[in-house]
Amino acid sequence: MSEEVGVIYVGQKPVSSYVLAAVTQFTRGSKKVSLKARGRAISRAVDAAELIKRFLQDKVDVESVTIGSEKVGEPGKERTVSTIEIILAQKE
Amino acid sequence: MSEEVGVIYVGQKPVSSYVLAAVTQFTRGSKKVSLKARGRAISRAVDAAELIKRFLQDKVDVESVTIGSEKVGEPGKERTVSTIEIILAQKE
Repeated sequence: MSEEVGVIYVGQKPVSSYVLAAVTQFTRGSKKVSLKARGRAISRAVDAAELIKRFLQDKVDVESVTIGSEKVGEPGKERTVSTIEIILAQKE
Repeated sequence: MSEEVGVIYVGQKPVSSYVLAAVTQFTRGSKKVSLKARGRAISRAVDAAELIKRFLQDKVDVESVTIGSEKVGEPGKERTVSTIEIILAQKE
């Protein structure tokens, strides 16, 4: 159970709501939490990751950061947006 | 010489200027280019990295992505901003 990776999609809400969501998941026993964001929300995902690290000092670390791109929108009106996935993991 | 890592600071200019700067560095023989950004410019740095990858298809890959935070501002008025460093490297 605790090996599941909780995924949190970072969007337009205040950073604090994503921090709270992640901290809650770790408190409930998740070993890893993945923060995913697209476009302008990418900066917010990095802010959230940094705040979570500071909040759960010495307990959580950034395991990996992956960037990529995705096509969004309807066929014919597609555009490419950048994506980020930040995986935070509990230290052993 | 060509082992030097060129550093490009991504700020408020259009993404294309950072893409051009990086492509120029690779064309001149740099093996690695580092894109650095803070705060809201983080999303732009990811956009630039993805565009550079697409532009120099099969020639350049993301070697590492590191996030962190930095204190900025005058003493007493300091605030913490998130940072990103994306290292792009020429494939062997």
